Amino acid sequence: MKRKIYLKTTSFKDALHKWASLYSSLPQTETEIIRVEDSLNRVTAEAVFARISSPFYHASAMDGFAVRFEETLGASETTPVRLKLGSQAVPVNTGNPLPEGFNAVVMVEDVHQEEDFIIINAPLTPYQNVRAVGEDIVKTELILPENHIIRPVDIAALLAGGHTEVKVRGKPLVGVIPTGDEVVEPGTALKPGNIIEFNSRMIASMTELWGGRCVREDITPDDKGLIREKLLSMLKRCDFVVVIAGSSVGTKDHAPELLGELGEVLVHGVNIKPGKPLLLANIEGKPVMGLPGYPVSAYLTFEFFARPLIYHLQGLRAPEYQTIKARLSRPVYSILGQTEFLRVKVGRVSKGFVASPVGRGAGAIMTLQRADGIVVIPEGSEGIGQSVEVDVRLLRSKEEIENTIVCIGSHDNCLDLMANFLKKRHPLYSLSSAHLGSMGGIVAIKQSQAHIAGTHLLDEATGQYNIPYIKRLLKGISLVLINLVYRMQGFIVKKGNPKNIQSVDDLLRDDITFINRQAGSGTRVLTDKLLRERDIDPSTIKGYNREEYTHMGVASAVASGVADVGMGILTAAVSLGLDFVPIAKERYDIIIPLEHLERPMIQALLDIIRNDKEFHSAILEAGGYDISDIGKVVYEQ
Amino acid sequence: MKRKIYLKTTSFKDALHKWASLYSSLPQTETEIIRVEDSLNRVTAEAVFARISSPFYHASAMDGFAVRFEETLGASETTPVRLKLGSQAVPVNTGNPLPEGFNAVVMVEDVHQEEDFIIINAPLTPYQNVRAVGEDIVKTELILPENHIIRPVDIAALLAGGHTEVKVRGKPLVGVIPTGDEVVEPGTALKPGNIIEFNSRMIASMTELWGGRCVREDITPDDKGLIREKLLSMLKRCDFVVVIAGSSVGTKDHAPELLGELGEVLVHGVNIKPGKPLLLANIEGKPVMGLPGYPVSAYLTFEFFARPLIYHLQGLRAPEYQTIKARLSRPVYSILGQTEFLRVKVGRVSKGFVASPVGRGAGAIMTLQRADGIVVIPEGSEGIGQSVEVDVRLLRSKEEIENTIVCIGSHDNCLDLMANFLKKRHPLYSLSSAHLGSMGGIVAIKQSQAHIAGTHLLDEATGQYNIPYIKRLLKGISLVLINLVYRMQGFIVKKGNPKNIQSVDDLLRDDITFINRQAGSGTRVLTDKLLRERDIDPSTIKGYNREEYTHMGVASAVASGVADVGMGILTAAVSLGLDFVPIAKERYDIIIPLEHLERPMIQALLDIIRNDKEFHSAILEAGGYDISDIGKVVYEQ
Repeated sequence: MKRKIYLKTTSFKDALHKWASLYSSLPQTETEIIRVEDSLNRVTAEAVFARISSPFYHASAMDGFAVRFEETLGASETTPVRLKLGSQAVPVNTGNPLPEGFNAVVMVEDVHQEEDFIIINAPLTPYQNVRAVGEDIVKTELILPENHIIRPVDIAALLAGGHTEVKVRGKPLVGVIPTGDEVVEPGTALKPGNIIEFNSRMIASMTELWGGRCVREDITPDDKGLIREKLLSMLKRCDFVVVIAGSSVGTKDHAPELLGELGEVLVHGVNIKPGKPLLLANIEGKPVMGLPGYPVSAYLTFEFFARPLIYHLQGLRAPEYQTIKARLSRPVYSILGQTEFLRVKVGRVSKGFVASPVGRGAGAIMTLQRADGIVVIPEGSEGIGQSVEVDVRLLRSKEEIENTIVCIGSHDNCLDLMANFLKKRHPLYSLSSAHLGSMGGIVAIKQSQAHIAGTHLLDEATGQYNIPYIKRLLKGISLVLINLVYRMQGFIVKKGNPKNIQSVDDLLRDDITFINRQAGSGTRVLTDKLLRERDIDPSTIKGYNREEYTHMGVASAVASGVADVGMGILTAAVSLGLDFVPIAKERYDIIIPLEHLERPMIQALLDIIRNDKEFHSAILEAGGYDISDIGKVVYEQ
Repeated sequence: MKRKIYLKTTSFKDALHKWASLYSSLPQTETEIIRVEDSLNRVTAEAVFARISSPFYHASAMDGFAVRFEETLGASETTPVRLKLGSQAVPVNTGNPLPEGFNAVVMVEDVHQEEDFIIINAPLTPYQNVRAVGEDIVKTELILPENHIIRPVDIAALLAGGHTEVKVRGKPLVGVIPTGDEVVEPGTALKPGNIIEFNSRMIASMTELWGGRCVREDITPDDKGLIREKLLSMLKRCDFVVVIAGSSVGTKDHAPELLGELGEVLVHGVNIKPGKPLLLANIEGKPVMGLPGYPVSAYLTFEFFARPLIYHLQGLRAPEYQTIKARLSRPVYSILGQTEFLRVKVGRVSKGFVASPVGRGAGAIMTLQRADGIVVIPEGSEGIGQSVEVDVRLLRSKEEIENTIVCIGSHDNCLDLMANFLKKRHPLYSLSSAHLGSMGGIVAIKQSQAHIAGTHLLDEATGQYNIPYIKRLLKGISLVLINLVYRMQGFIVKKGNPKNIQSVDDLLRDDITFINRQAGSGTRVLTDKLLRERDIDPSTIKGYNREEYTHMGVASAVASGVADVGMGILTAAVSLGLDFVPIAKERYDIIIPLEHLERPMIQALLDIIRNDKEFHSAILEAGGYDISDIGKVVYEQ
C-alpha cells in the first residue's frame, strides 16, 4: 500500500489568491432576456433607461376640476370666481389626463358647486395639483445600472418606465459530481459502510442562495474513467464543476491525478482546518473544485471558494459576512501555520456576546448546524486565550442570537422538547443547550455565560439535590431554582439485558465494559458516590475512562456495542430500544438568576414549563419522568 | 358629485393593533410534505428528530488498519507489536466500517509493513481513530424544532439523520385583484389616462421575499359587482386577499362599501403619509387589504401590514428591520397627528451617516427606488431638525451605502453614464447623485455631505468657470477640480422650433412660456446673467417662477407643452427629440476634496473618467459634449 502525498500544501491566502486569479478573468454568464415580473433577485446585464416618461401625460393629482389657471387669477373669499362647467371646468378624478387646453386642477373640497358653475375662492398656479409629464420618471433617464440586483421596487420602476422585459445575467450553472463507492442516495436501505450523499444537496442549496443553480450527476463510483467522462460532459455545459470527495491522498482518491491530466492543478491541499484536502484546478479555462468529502470541510471550502466565483459570474461582489465581536468562553489552541475555522455558539447573557467553541470534527455536520458562527484563527496564531475578543462570522442573525436562551448544564431529553415548544409557541425565541454537565452549568451561571442551567447534583453529606452546591458555589447570586422533573437513573443495557447486569458490583466483572459520563456531570457524581459506598476502586472498572457527554451518547455506546452498560436516564434507554435497570430516582432542577427571570423569553419558557399541557404530555410520553412538581420554586436566594 | 368621506381615520399604531388582533388568531398555513432537497428557506411544520444515528456504524476516521486495541497494549519503539494482516489487522479507508470484532484504527502513517504483518510502536486506546455510532447525530435527537427556516446545513443534517422528506408550512397564498378603469397591462399601447399596472407585480415580489406567493386576477374595471365576484372567488382559495386601488373616497372607489357589505371594515383611512387611503377588513375571518393605488403608498402599506401577516402564516416573526443612525441633512416638517415615512438617501462622507430627504410624493416610485432608507416621523412630532440623529430603516445594505460615492451638485446626463460605468466595472461601488444645482454641490462639499460635486458656475466678473466660487466659498478646504466635459447650453424648444425662438429677447414675447431652473443652479446663473446683460426684468417673463431641478425636467416640460422654451444642455434636447438653439459653451467640472481623493472608490471613478474608452464613446454618442480635457486637473487648492 503505497502512500500518495499532497504535492505541496498551500496557505489559505495563497489558495484564495490563485483561485481568484483564475476566475476573475472569466466573463460574466451569458445574458438572457426575461419578463420584468419574473426578475426578482436577478442581476441586470446592461443599464436600463426609461423608455417612456411617467406620467406620460399631464395627470390630475386630485379629485376635482380641471381649469385654466389664468381664469382663476384674482379669486378670493370676497371676489370668488365662477367657472362654467364643461367649458371652463371639467370634472377629473385622480389620475385622469388633463383635458387639452387646461393647466391646473382645483380640489373638489375647495369648490362650491352651483348649478352649472363651480365657485372658487383662491387663485391657482400653473399646473397646480397636476402630476406633469415626467414628474416621476423622465424618458431616457437611468433606471438601473448594469450589475444591479433587482428588488421589488425596481420591478415597479422598470414597468413604470415602459419595460416588460429585462436583460439579466444567466444564473451561473454549477456541475456537481458526487463520487465514492460507499456513497448512496438518501432513502436507500443502508448497509454498514454506506454514506448518505447529502453534500451535493447542501452545496446546491448554497449555490441557490448565491444566485446560481446546480446540475447534479448521479453518484459515480471511484472509477477514474467514469469520473473523467462525467467531468468532461459537465465542463461542456457548466460554468464550473465540483467533484465531491476523492480529493485527498487515499488509494481511491482519483481526482488529483485526473484533474492534473485534464488541466492544471492550482492547489492540492490547503493549510486550513477543516478542509485540508481541497483541490483547485483549471481545465481549459474553467474552474474545477475537488471538494473534501467530510461535510464540514465541504461546506466551508465551498463557501470560501465557490461563493466569490458564483457572485463574480453574475457581475457582483459577494457581500461581506455579518460579524459581531464576542469574547471567547475558554482558550483554544491551534496549529501554527494552519488557518482554523472554529465553530462557536454565541450567546448574549450579560453585556456583550460570548462565543463558546463547539466540536472541531470535520465529519460532524451537527456541530456546524448548531453553530451560531465561525471564528477564524489565522495561520500565524497558536490559539486564542479565554475572554479575548474575537470577530465571529455569523451563521444565524444577530437578532436570533439575542433572542436565544442559553442553557448550559446537565443534559436531559426534556431540553429538546423545551427547545421545540419554545420555538413552536414563540417563533421569535430559541433555546440553545450545551451539555457540559451540572457543574459546568453552575460555573456558566457564575461566569454569566448562561441564562439558565439544568442541574441534578446529589450532595452526599445531606442527601439533598442541588441546593447545597448552589449555596456553596453561587454565593451572592440572586436566583431561583425551579424543578423540572424527577427522573430515574439506572443502568442502560442491551435489549434483554443479555449479560444480566443488576447492580453496581456487576461493573467489576471481566466480561463487562462500562461507558462513563464526564467529570462534573450529575450522573458521574451519582456513579462515583455509588462506587465509594461500595469501596470500589474505579480503575478496576473496564471502560471507566471512556467518557460521553450526554445520556444519549451513553445509550448510543451501548446500542452500538462500544460498551455493555452505562449510567443514564430511562428516557435515553427507551428511545434507542434498550433495557434499563433502575438505580436511583433523582431531581432535575433549573437555576435561573433573578437578573434574567423577568426577560420576556425566560417568562415565555417558564409559562411553557408550568402551563403547557401539550409540553407536559410530551414529557410523559417520552417515559421515565415524574412531573408532579414541574415549574415549582424549590429554592430561592 | 357627492363627496364620500373616510368613516374615521385611525392612528398607525391602532391600525397595526387592530390588524394584528385579526391575524394573530389565524392558524398557520396547511402543511405539505416535500423533498428535503427542495426545502431551502421553507419552514418546518413540526419538530424533526433523527431517524438514524450518524454514523450508524463504527466508521474508520482514517486510512489505515483496523485492529483490536487489546493486542496493541505495551507497544513501544523498543517493544514493537507485530499484527498479522487479515486476522489481526485489516486495511480500512476513511469511512469504512470497522470489521466485526475490531475496535480501533491505526493510521497508515504510523505503521511499518513487513510481508504479512504490520508493526506498530505505540498502543491504541479503545475506538481510537474511529467515528463511533452516533458521534455526529444520535437517533431520536432533535434536528430541527418547529417554525425553523431551513438552511443548506439543515438540509445536510436532515438527510444525514435519515429523512428524505420534511413537513413544512405551505407558502401563504395571497390573492391580488388589481382594479381600475384606467389601469392597463404593461406592454399595452398607451393612451392618455392609462396607468400601467405594476403594483401587483411589485407586491408579488415582496410576497415572494417573505416566503409567500401571489395569485393575480386580471385587471378588473371599477365595477362593484365584478370586484365582488373576484373577491369572493379569491377568498375561497387564498389565505388573504388584496384589492389594489379603489380604497379611497372617490366616486369610483368601491372597495370600502364592498368590504363593509361582505364583512367588517376594521380600518378605513390611516393617519400615515404616504398611505392614508388604506382599507383593512375581516371577511369571514380572512384578512382583506384595500391597498392605495399610488405606488409608494401601496409599497409601504403592504410592507407594514402584509409582511407580519405573511410571516405569521408561516409560524414566524418578521425579522427586525436593519437600521442605522444618521444625522438629517436638513430640517423636515411634518403634520402633527400623522405618522410620516420619509424617504432618504444616506451617505457616509465623513464620520457618521447623513440622511438627506428626497421627494415625498406618493406617486413617485423613483423616490422610493432611489432611496436608501426610511425615517419614521412619529405622529406626535411636527418635524425633525437639521443634524438631529434619526434611525433609518435601510432599503439597501449598510455595505452598499458605505461603498457609494455621494455626488451632489449640478445635473448632467453624463452622471447617469458615470453611475452605470462605475457599477459595470466595479460591482462593489455605486454612484448616487442628487441634483441640487452647482451651488448646492459647493455647500454639500463645505458641509461634508458629498464626496464629489459637479459644478458649472460662471463668474460674471472674470468670465471664469467655478474657480472664483471655489476660492470664495471653499476657502481652507484642500481639493482638486477636475474637468469632465465642455457642453453646449441653449434654448430647448419644440421640434422644428414652431415659435421660432432665437434669442433671449424672444422670452419677453406674449406667446412664449418659459420654464426656469432652480436658484443656485449653474444654468440659472447663466440665465440671470444673460437677462442682466440685456437689462431684462425677470418678472416680465411668463413662467420665470416655475422651476425644474434638472435639464431633463426642463426638456420634459417643453416636450409635454408645459412650456415653450427653457435653458438647458443639448443632450437633454436630443434625448427627448427636441430642438436646440445654442447660446453658450460652458465648462462642467467636478470638485473632489483631497480627503476623499485617495479612497479606492474615488480612484476607480477617476480611472473611468480618464481612461475608459467605452465611457468616452458613450458621452460622445449622447451628443453635445467636448471631452478634450476630460479628467484633467483644472485647479488645486
